Amino acid sequence: MIEKYTTEAMRKIWADENRFRKWLDVELAVCRARAAEGEIPADDLALIESRASFRVERIAEIEEETQHDVIAFVNNVQENIGPSGRYVHLGITSSDVIDTAASMQISDALDVIVGAAEGLYESLARLAWKYRRTPCAGRSHGIHAEPTSFGLKFLGFVSEIGRDIERLRSVREEIRVCKISGAVGTYANCPPRIEARVAAELNLKPDPVSSQIIQRDRHASVIAALAIYGAGLERLATEIRHLQRTEVLEAMEPFGKKQKGSSAMPHKKNPILSERVCGLARLLRGYAAAALENVALWHERDISHSSAERVIWPDAFSAAHYMTGIMKRVTDGLVVNERMIERNLELTGGLIASGRILSALIERGMARDDAYAAVQENAMKCWDAAQRGESASLRGLLEADPRTALLARGGEGGLGELFRFDFFLAHVGEIFARFPIFEKLGLK
Amino acid sequence: MIEKYTTEAMRKIWADENRFRKWLDVELAVCRARAAEGEIPADDLALIESRASFRVERIAEIEEETQHDVIAFVNNVQENIGPSGRYVHLGITSSDVIDTAASMQISDALDVIVGAAEGLYESLARLAWKYRRTPCAGRSHGIHAEPTSFGLKFLGFVSEIGRDIERLRSVREEIRVCKISGAVGTYANCPPRIEARVAAELNLKPDPVSSQIIQRDRHASVIAALAIYGAGLERLATEIRHLQRTEVLEAMEPFGKKQKGSSAMPHKKNPILSERVCGLARLLRGYAAAALENVALWHERDISHSSAERVIWPDAFSAAHYMTGIMKRVTDGLVVNERMIERNLELTGGLIASGRILSALIERGMARDDAYAAVQENAMKCWDAAQRGESASLRGLLEADPRTALLARGGEGGLGELFRFDFFLAHVGEIFARFPIFEKLGLK
Amino acid sequence: MIEKYTTEAMRKIWADENRFRKWLDVELAVCRARAAEGEIPADDLALIESRASFRVERIAEIEEETQHDVIAFVNNVQENIGPSGRYVHLGITSSDVIDTAASMQISDALDVIVGAAEGLYESLARLAWKYRRTPCAGRSHGIHAEPTSFGLKFLGFVSEIGRDIERLRSVREEIRVCKISGAVGTYANCPPRIEARVAAELNLKPDPVSSQIIQRDRHASVIAALAIYGAGLERLATEIRHLQRTEVLEAMEPFGKKQKGSSAMPHKKNPILSERVCGLARLLRGYAAAALENVALWHERDISHSSAERVIWPDAFSAAHYMTGIMKRVTDGLVVNERMIERNLELTGGLIASGRILSALIERGMARDDAYAAVQENAMKCWDAAQRGESASLRGLLEADPRTALLARGGEGGLGELFRFDFFLAHVGEIFARFPIFEKLGLK
Amino acid sequence: MIEKYTTEAMRKIWADENRFRKWLDVELAVCRARAAEGEIPADDLALIESRASFRVERIAEIEEETQHDVIAFVNNVQENIGPSGRYVHLGITSSDVIDTAASMQISDALDVIVGAAEGLYESLARLAWKYRRTPCAGRSHGIHAEPTSFGLKFLGFVSEIGRDIERLRSVREEIRVCKISGAVGTYANCPPRIEARVAAELNLKPDPVSSQIIQRDRHASVIAALAIYGAGLERLATEIRHLQRTEVLEAMEPFGKKQKGSSAMPHKKNPILSERVCGLARLLRGYAAAALENVALWHERDISHSSAERVIWPDAFSAAHYMTGIMKRVTDGLVVNERMIERNLELTGGLIASGRILSALIERGMARDDAYAAVQENAMKCWDAAQRGESASLRGLLEADPRTALLARGGEGGLGELFRFDFFLAHVGEIFARFPIFEKLGLK
Repeated sequence: MIEKYTTEAMRKIWADENRFRKWLDVELAVCRARAAEGEIPADDLALIESRASFRVERIAEIEEETQHDVIAFVNNVQENIGPSGRYVHLGITSSDVIDTAASMQISDALDVIVGAAEGLYESLARLAWKYRRTPCAGRSHGIHAEPTSFGLKFLGFVSEIGRDIERLRSVREEIRVCKISGAVGTYANCPPRIEARVAAELNLKPDPVSSQIIQRDRHASVIAALAIYGAGLERLATEIRHLQRTEVLEAMEPFGKKQKGSSAMPHKKNPILSERVCGLARLLRGYAAAALENVALWHERDISHSSAERVIWPDAFSAAHYMTGIMKRVTDGLVVNERMIERNLELTGGLIASGRILSALIERGMARDDAYAAVQENAMKCWDAAQRGESASLRGLLEADPRTALLARGGEGGLGELFRFDFFLAHVGEIFARFPIFEKLGLK
Repeated sequence: MIEKYTTEAMRKIWADENRFRKWLDVELAVCRARAAEGEIPADDLALIESRASFRVERIAEIEEETQHDVIAFVNNVQENIGPSGRYVHLGITSSDVIDTAASMQISDALDVIVGAAEGLYESLARLAWKYRRTPCAGRSHGIHAEPTSFGLKFLGFVSEIGRDIERLRSVREEIRVCKISGAVGTYANCPPRIEARVAAELNLKPDPVSSQIIQRDRHASVIAALAIYGAGLERLATEIRHLQRTEVLEAMEPFGKKQKGSSAMPHKKNPILSERVCGLARLLRGYAAAALENVALWHERDISHSSAERVIWPDAFSAAHYMTGIMKRVTDGLVVNERMIERNLELTGGLIASGRILSALIERGMARDDAYAAVQENAMKCWDAAQRGESASLRGLLEADPRTALLARGGEGGLGELFRFDFFLAHVGEIFARFPIFEKLGLK
Repeated sequence: MIEKYTTEAMRKIWADENRFRKWLDVELAVCRARAAEGEIPADDLALIESRASFRVERIAEIEEETQHDVIAFVNNVQENIGPSGRYVHLGITSSDVIDTAASMQISDALDVIVGAAEGLYESLARLAWKYRRTPCAGRSHGIHAEPTSFGLKFLGFVSEIGRDIERLRSVREEIRVCKISGAVGTYANCPPRIEARVAAELNLKPDPVSSQIIQRDRHASVIAALAIYGAGLERLATEIRHLQRTEVLEAMEPFGKKQKGSSAMPHKKNPILSERVCGLARLLRGYAAAALENVALWHERDISHSSAERVIWPDAFSAAHYMTGIMKRVTDGLVVNERMIERNLELTGGLIASGRILSALIERGMARDDAYAAVQENAMKCWDAAQRGESASLRGLLEADPRTALLARGGEGGLGELFRFDFFLAHVGEIFARFPIFEKLGLK
Repeated sequence: MIEKYTTEAMRKIWADENRFRKWLDVELAVCRARAAEGEIPADDLALIESRASFRVERIAEIEEETQHDVIAFVNNVQENIGPSGRYVHLGITSSDVIDTAASMQISDALDVIVGAAEGLYESLARLAWKYRRTPCAGRSHGIHAEPTSFGLKFLGFVSEIGRDIERLRSVREEIRVCKISGAVGTYANCPPRIEARVAAELNLKPDPVSSQIIQRDRHASVIAALAIYGAGLERLATEIRHLQRTEVLEAMEPFGKKQKGSSAMPHKKNPILSERVCGLARLLRGYAAAALENVALWHERDISHSSAERVIWPDAFSAAHYMTGIMKRVTDGLVVNERMIERNLELTGGLIASGRILSALIERGMARDDAYAAVQENAMKCWDAAQRGESASLRGLLEADPRTALLARGGEGGLGELFRFDFFLAHVGEIFARFPIFEKLGLK
């Protein structure tokens, strides 16, 4: 991943240094397991434990010759240990080390993403709570539909990010497996009890059956979960982009004091953070596609997955982590423009209540078809006027139409009542009550 | 999906008839809920329940005019009920019906897939069990690596399909939600307690917060799980294709008595079923990509997901179901050629044991680097001879090499012992014991 | 492709009937070529030509047994011809027939798409021409940027669809190849001169080198061109969806007299056609992904591409053709709301001219940085007022600011001049003049 | 792209340094054009030309504040020029600079790829030529089909890479456009004649109509061409991987003297280069998917494409360039094992000639169906024997079968003649003659 989109946490996890560190953790765990089984003398183990180390540059040097990274790594570790080094990597295969280490790296990376996503979850929850009683235009197809609450909009994202967090936790369980089963998974040179000890030490579970590798459906599942998460962030980012449109302007991304929106147009404040996240979500989908193609390897394994994984693992995790940080920055600093929210709600002269009128007519005994026709006809007049920039009022039109005049009569405020926006928010509290996060945040 | 790849079960689930049937189930559940809450008189409910029905052709007729399928459906149901029909669809929105019904359709389709996958799981388990003690060449990179067991190969697929089944069950949980929350998810015209009753009747859970729709991350998660499953089937199909290669010939797909492999070449028996599955796995990846793009809808929803879903839902499920059936047919009827398995294992004059020799040398005190060099040098000689079609023997070469001669001495059979294939299968029983399916199948 | 999205033209091209018809064309062309080379007696050819025929149902019947569609087809044709039928398919292989026929089907399908795209091109050109002098808000990031012309917007789509047409024509050239080179492409049983005659008769070019098949990079190139075209239609559809937003309302899709936008909200007019096209564009991307995976077949061919192609060829072409028709319907009937276009342009109190002001200040000698700061500061004040729903005027603010007061002085109308929208359209005529279509349509 | 897969040429093209260099080229071309039009005094132009420069670190510093890279760049250039710097970037917009520069970068990158692909083309041509008369088993479905020539196999790749080169050249033409049309493409502050001069200086063509940007269908077309090319390389790599399988062993990748194939198995020589290329081809498909999603931007542009492009442009080009180098290394150093090619050809006891036998029977008057049955029956016997490891001979079986005995009689060598492999290569010279490359290389 390019510098710009690489987070510090992901840089560390996916750096060569950390990869070799994890490899060493695996090799040492194997040595300790073998020693515990009496296969390595205690003195040798002591020497191995005290002297085992590596240097990234030295490994690169050896790899230049051998064209094999694990052999280069093992050579370097062994030359640092001395003769006792011969016990290192004994009877196991490169992929035992690489795949077990990768499980740990991916698991660590998932922990980072989940932690960040939880931060975003909370930020969204605060936003949702703050505006839970702010009526705003609900829109389907980009067209005003019925009033909703501005906070409810964000509660939808709280819920979606919550599901993403569950999915990420679930794939973390899938990937927390180790494999110390040798060249083709038979444990021929290293019995299952070694694997069991290694798993326990590294806090992993043994893969119940492996070939030369841990099968790639597990890894595809991880990257697919990241891509779904990315699509959720994209939905949030798309919402912000829409809300910030000049004609809508209900909310804006935070904008720095010295920030410039355009080299040519000094007035511009653009939702560039959210746009950036949308672009990165596309990358994640591409990585997921590659991860899916990585599953069907040949026989006990072919290594075609490896070149793709060297790129998509760090890139997908970096993108996802970076996107999370960006969206949290956006939601934390979101500038909400309540006056525009209110103006937009009133933009259509009451059209936004047409569904409620329809229901009211039917409830009062009118046939659905007739009611629909009566409301649609008046709504379209109102719509046309609004588009001509004329002041229009659905309420006025309905009062004047004999078919719908019955609504004007009757108790409970008659027609006026039907156009009250708080009506639409009556159940919002109930929806919020389904989410324990608010109590946890002391919001009530 | 084209006729050829549409299974009977999927045809039914995704037919218009069934879709409208599910819609009616939802509408009726809403009516019953409203009646229970006292909002629909008992007599009207009785009439609704007894008369509610639809005809696919009549709905199409009305849709021609309204350009809106749910309105057409509701009209048709209402005209069949008579005046009491006005209570149908009251206060709810099209997507309440469509999305709740879709949850049921998808859930049913997942049940079908899981059922079929369990059949394949068992078929693979029988195959794995039957050949668990049959040594064969294990291959990495397409190159002989170390002996493995022919059954262990298939146990790997048992395990992978098992994980797929878990994933499919997990996304089924994700998708078993209903939404009766109205035009933008506020429950303005239909309170949450109606939704709760509907959910209970239809055996779904209420989506904790919805907009006009149930968010599409849930559906993307379903299609992604299908694509991962498809990739697993592709891995199995690819294995069969490799095993059936003329030069390998360890196994063959069943081949009909009157079947013809080629119009020009009468001798051909081609692994066409497995190849077909590989092609269909590509389709599933494409559908998953579209499903991921469907997540980021605008505001409370836009309808761009709908056209894609009309295609990818039936197509993805049909493909996955069809592929499962094909692969079960292949594994049930797989022709295994044990003689060729044995011949291939001996093809390299013992090279396949090189890893074990290396370990033995190191265990007897040789430095890893020296041991590697000694074995590699002899192995390459042996390899070269084998390629020239000459009979080669790694054992002979090692006995003649003073560096490795030490192996010939010593107890336990010396070098000969190191070339015994059953050595490599010593732990296979232990691996199989991790899978309860065998006991369940009475295999022990 | 589902019924709903299958066009009549594509149904015909991809029907079994037409596929077998093309196969027969190929078989007969081979027979005529062989006869011309003296390999089939004239009498036999005459019988073949007069009697060759097939029935889809009979082929299906035979395929049931042989599990091979070309063999079934050839059998049926031969049984209809009688003994002379033995010359049919002689020395050629199934893929000679299938792939050559597919080249013709794809080429025909491309012709249909190109024809339809040309219709859309013209429709867009008329729209562009009609509104070429209508100033409207140009938007970047969804934020007002500078005025543009409403027609210029659509000229952009004219240009893009024009490029798509070029690409579709170019891939048509790529795919117009035939292959009568036998089982593995050696012409062993059917010399190149036969292929040359067949190519000439069918108006194709011989593939310079083929294996059992025509390589799939050609076909991937076709489907990729369709996906790029689909993305262009999606861009157009997305533009319409934005223009139809309630807050923007500059244009609307045609809406039928009896059409209903929502079952619950009678006022709704939704851009459902454009949304539908966006969803279908996602499908096309998925098909392109599968087509790309189809390229890397094994050795002289494996048949894994076939199952994918049976689905993606008809589906991709149907989707693309259907989308084209839909978008033409939208552009032909687009309801343009000039009053709203004008209102939106004035929405920001002149902010939209900020770039021009900046240029004017620099031209008059101010340093770019100072000029930017002065304009940005006033623009932000103006922006803030506009968001509060107050009437704001950038012009007034600039006149009051001593730094920018210099603009008020000077000839050519001073500041007022800088806010005139026709200024921004001065070069639009020149841009339109680059497109010959207008002269061709008699628009000048 | 990670270090490992980044080529030196691509590193340079996509480095910040080069990007800013291209930006400066564009800014200077605009200044020169404006000066030629009398809009910039000669003295100022002279100062601009002599002093214009930038420093990557300084730009980064300014961007930290402005959050806008072009503004930061322009500021840095201007501070280096002094007061005359105010003419730089006057009346144009950031994307004029960015997109025009990107066209040059992409075009340069395509030149590098094309150059490298031509090297591979030649390498493949030499391989094809060298083995043009070497008969080998042709395989469909992985099953022996008919003999082909080992060189013809590679001629197929020559032809495919040739098509890829044509496609890459064609998209180069598509992308060689510039755009100096201002904020929304109206040329309001910078007339088309400036753009024309800039285009001429930079050897580009003006985009006939642009918005704020050059439309992304052009760029999607480029990345799609790279992905198709990548799939072609993958097909070649897959062929090598198959040929190197232990059971096939007809060719092997070059293997370094000190190279090690496995840490555990000293005998291993794995086709790791080709496998690596297969993995990278998957990445290219993912990048193409993202590029396709980048097309449908909002209105006159949104910037969501930018984050994706920052990653996929350098990554896709680096991958494609790296893959080309790898495959050239493989084909240049390919170790071809003629003895194994011959052995494999004889592996099936003559089955590989079954198509020719079938043709011969039909030519001698037998009905196709009867002939097919006779050959298939004997072929299957032969096949079964071969699988049991017994020596089998189709020729012997046919001689013994009364139905086919007629072949044994007759002139031209009878049955023996039908089993001669050179028969199948009779037309290979003719195929090669279609490719001018051989004459160009002096091969004849």
